[in-house]
Amino acid sequence: MSTQIPQRTVFFVSDGTGITAETLGATLLTQFVDVEFKKTTLPFINTPERARSAVDYINHLAAGGERPLVFSTTVSDEIRAILRQAKALFMDLFDTYIAPVEQELGLKSSHAQGRAHGMSDAGRYDARIAAMNYAMEHDDGQSTRDLSRADIILIAPSRCGKTPTTLYLALQHAIFATNFPLTEDDLEVMRIPKPLKGFEGKLFGLTSDPERLTEVRGERRPGSKYASLAQCGYELRQAEQLYRRQNIPFLNSAKMSIEEIAAMVIQEKGLRR
Amino acid sequence: MSTQIPQRTVFFVSDGTGITAETLGATLLTQFVDVEFKKTTLPFINTPERARSAVDYINHLAAGGERPLVFSTTVSDEIRAILRQAKALFMDLFDTYIAPVEQELGLKSSHAQGRAHGMSDAGRYDARIAAMNYAMEHDDGQSTRDLSRADIILIAPSRCGKTPTTLYLALQHAIFATNFPLTEDDLEVMRIPKPLKGFEGKLFGLTSDPERLTEVRGERRPGSKYASLAQCGYELRQAEQLYRRQNIPFLNSAKMSIEEIAAMVIQEKGLRR
Repeated sequence: MSTQIPQRTVFFVSDGTGITAETLGATLLTQFVDVEFKKTTLPFINTPERARSAVDYINHLAAGGERPLVFSTTVSDEIRAILRQAKALFMDLFDTYIAPVEQELGLKSSHAQGRAHGMSDAGRYDARIAAMNYAMEHDDGQSTRDLSRADIILIAPSRCGKTPTTLYLALQHAIFATNFPLTEDDLEVMRIPKPLKGFEGKLFGLTSDPERLTEVRGERRPGSKYASLAQCGYELRQAEQLYRRQNIPFLNSAKMSIEEIAAMVIQEKGLRR
Repeated sequence: MSTQIPQRTVFFVSDGTGITAETLGATLLTQFVDVEFKKTTLPFINTPERARSAVDYINHLAAGGERPLVFSTTVSDEIRAILRQAKALFMDLFDTYIAPVEQELGLKSSHAQGRAHGMSDAGRYDARIAAMNYAMEHDDGQSTRDLSRADIILIAPSRCGKTPTTLYLALQHAIFATNFPLTEDDLEVMRIPKPLKGFEGKLFGLTSDPERLTEVRGERRPGSKYASLAQCGYELRQAEQLYRRQNIPFLNSAKMSIEEIAAMVIQEKGLRR
């Protein structure tokens, strides 16, 4: 009576970190919910020797089963030619798209390895680190210094997703983001926290669903008033009313991932990614 | 006498956050260093109406110039058909790869939108948030509680990249990561910090180049002993010797991005992504 879910081995192969191959492959695989994918990432496959080892490894792991899927982002034609010998369905991003882009631009590609997630853009990289340091120093209203430097200030009752969204905006998009909690006092008299006066244009509010917030707070402080459905419902209602009164854009984060919240905030506030 | 760098408009279009489209497109575009790409992301294009607006927007922004590149990850055939009408080189991930993957698996894809960076995998999502909370609570040796919960503990002199790498491992890979600074005292007597006794198997060391470390520290405390080339050189030499003596795996982060450091740490320590 056992239900057998089909399994398939998947490899993400890259001459760099493997992030692009993982992202590309994972996005496609989300479209096949009834298969269990066993995923392995093989990063830094940037020499013919490593490519040959990767092929051996893929063939070894897949021996006896159905042929694996290989999602690859490998710049070198030579290395790709080796990888293609694996007993697998081989799909490479550069194989597919580099020719049409070259033709469109009327230029040859540089074939430089590992550029996508390396240090090729040092300015951008330093900006991300600076944004992350800023986010860490200012998280949860810890510091009110340099608020004028912020691109965005998230406000919300506790545990609506402020901190993860802030860190994601900083690390991924080099956006100077910070966040302030809305305390019970703030919510009762429906005011924005004092240090934020003068920065109204940078504010973005988060809410959640009472049920979701109770669940999240309950993991931290089970059985507390803080985690009760009544308290969560009250804080969320007050917060939403505060946002409306003060014309602060906001969204409900209950069913959204960090990535989705970040994408919405960027779009709503017209921030540069 | 002006050198004219060719410009090209690029759009990342998606029915979800746009992250996959950006990653895919950006990776390809790193291969063309002599073009200035003007990038715009159009996320949440998940209805025919929004697709038609996107086409108008693309055509409007591109009017008069060379035709833009559009990198798309759009699950719906109907929406893709609309987007394809833009006056652009249109490249869609699903267009290209979904058919071969369907054929290989002998299954039809689900056509569900926005799954790649949404909440489709709630367990994975909660693990990422838990890992991030852990990283925030423990950052820079702040807390020694629950160190047994850590998958990895990064150690290094100040400003070698511990904190960004830790947060990245947590947010991106749901890895329980934390980090401890190697203080001057630790380095002088070449010992690992006391609270880490018993957790030697979880340690991973970072070093840097003296020149790079001086530069990074100098931004924080210009002209200090802390930022001096002599001090940086001393701390890095001692740290490296400590790692070698204690058989702690380590890498030099000076020319590496967070993504590269994270990928190396995962590979070296055999962590699950």
